[in-house]
Amino acid sequence: MNEITVHSKKHSAMIPITEAVKSRIPAHFTGLCHLFSLHTTAGLTVNENADPDVQSDILAALEKAVPWNSPEYRHAEGNSAAHVKASMLGFDLTLPVRDGDLELGCWQGIYFCEFDGPRERRVRMMLIPSGDEPLIRRMAGE
Amino acid sequence: MNEITVHSKKHSAMIPITEAVKSRIPAHFTGLCHLFSLHTTAGLTVNENADPDVQSDILAALEKAVPWNSPEYRHAEGNSAAHVKASMLGFDLTLPVRDGDLELGCWQGIYFCEFDGPRERRVRMMLIPSGDEPLIRRMAGE
Amino acid sequence: MNEITVHSKKHSAMIPITEAVKSRIPAHFTGLCHLFSLHTTAGLTVNENADPDVQSDILAALEKAVPWNSPEYRHAEGNSAAHVKASMLGFDLTLPVRDGDLELGCWQGIYFCEFDGPRERRVRMMLIPSGDEPLIRRMAGE
Repeated sequence: MNEITVHSKKHSAMIPITEAVKSRIPAHFTGLCHLFSLHTTAGLTVNENADPDVQSDILAALEKAVPWNSPEYRHAEGNSAAHVKASMLGFDLTLPVRDGDLELGCWQGIYFCEFDGPRERRVRMMLIPSGDEPLIRRMAGE
Repeated sequence: MNEITVHSKKHSAMIPITEAVKSRIPAHFTGLCHLFSLHTTAGLTVNENADPDVQSDILAALEKAVPWNSPEYRHAEGNSAAHVKASMLGFDLTLPVRDGDLELGCWQGIYFCEFDGPRERRVRMMLIPSGDEPLIRRMAGE
Repeated sequence: MNEITVHSKKHSAMIPITEAVKSRIPAHFTGLCHLFSLHTTAGLTVNENADPDVQSDILAALEKAVPWNSPEYRHAEGNSAAHVKASMLGFDLTLPVRDGDLELGCWQGIYFCEFDGPRERRVRMMLIPSGDEPLIRRMAGE
């Protein structure tokens, strides 16, 4: 069990955590890497790791679909849009790892998605070994 | 393997299932808790467990982004918006557990999200032990 | 570890991959089936396997919430909407399997969601045995 701390500096931001995740995966580990945002106004996603305009376009499109200001919101804290966006992207992310390497596509990066910053945030990380090829083969009756 | 039954009473609702999940986790279990909604118009999410206005704001914002009535829908059953909202929030949820405790953030609760109720619904629950620290260390070459 | 190749033929499409997934699950396997889209403009979801109008309604509703054309997008490649929609549905999907059977609800199918096709796409599949009932019972102190 491991934890990644994220310091968001803006109100909304997609913060890359790919390297932080990679550095916590032991050599030769094969299985799943599970990430979980411990918050209700910040989620996790995968997306393009190259052009940062993709990140700002994602934030802008989410803001258009779920505007920060709306006369309909009743939650007194005033951050309902952040709760909605975080649920839309999700709080959990499960990624495949093979022999110590996170198996992302070549354009993929992992992002912590802040929707009500700036804040200090935490992401739990847990590794689940698939490792048991013999068990899977036994289940297959081989 | 376990199942949680949810009786939704309204057309749209976020129904807390945190306690139902917790009660099915054995003492000392460490690993992942996997939840899966067996439906196509009802999903699962995590969000705030305190002010119920957050839940109604989430439902209202989703309704605004994906309105129930739209001349464009072709699905004869008339519940296309429910299918879209459920896919937006997702049907599966994977949560970390350590030594019998669901590791949620202090404001987080688990919600079954009904978008076409009232109905009787089912959520599958499966526990996957991470338990194998020695195996993870062996993979790390320690 | 396994991979499913998907050849999308349209710009936006929900392509059923349920049978491809099922065919890769060994008899008697119990645990989780993890699927991961290796792309940034195509995701994965579960939804209705019967009326194909549901699929086109989902694509249309996502297009309405996140239009392909918008003067606000800055990403030069012009496919920002595809990045947003893929993040909304998600790139990873984890499904329960019991004794070789994928435990889907009776109306559920698994879909690869193309938002910027046509392209050749890849989905990673990994199986994680829950199998260890004795370990779970030991954790429970039984």
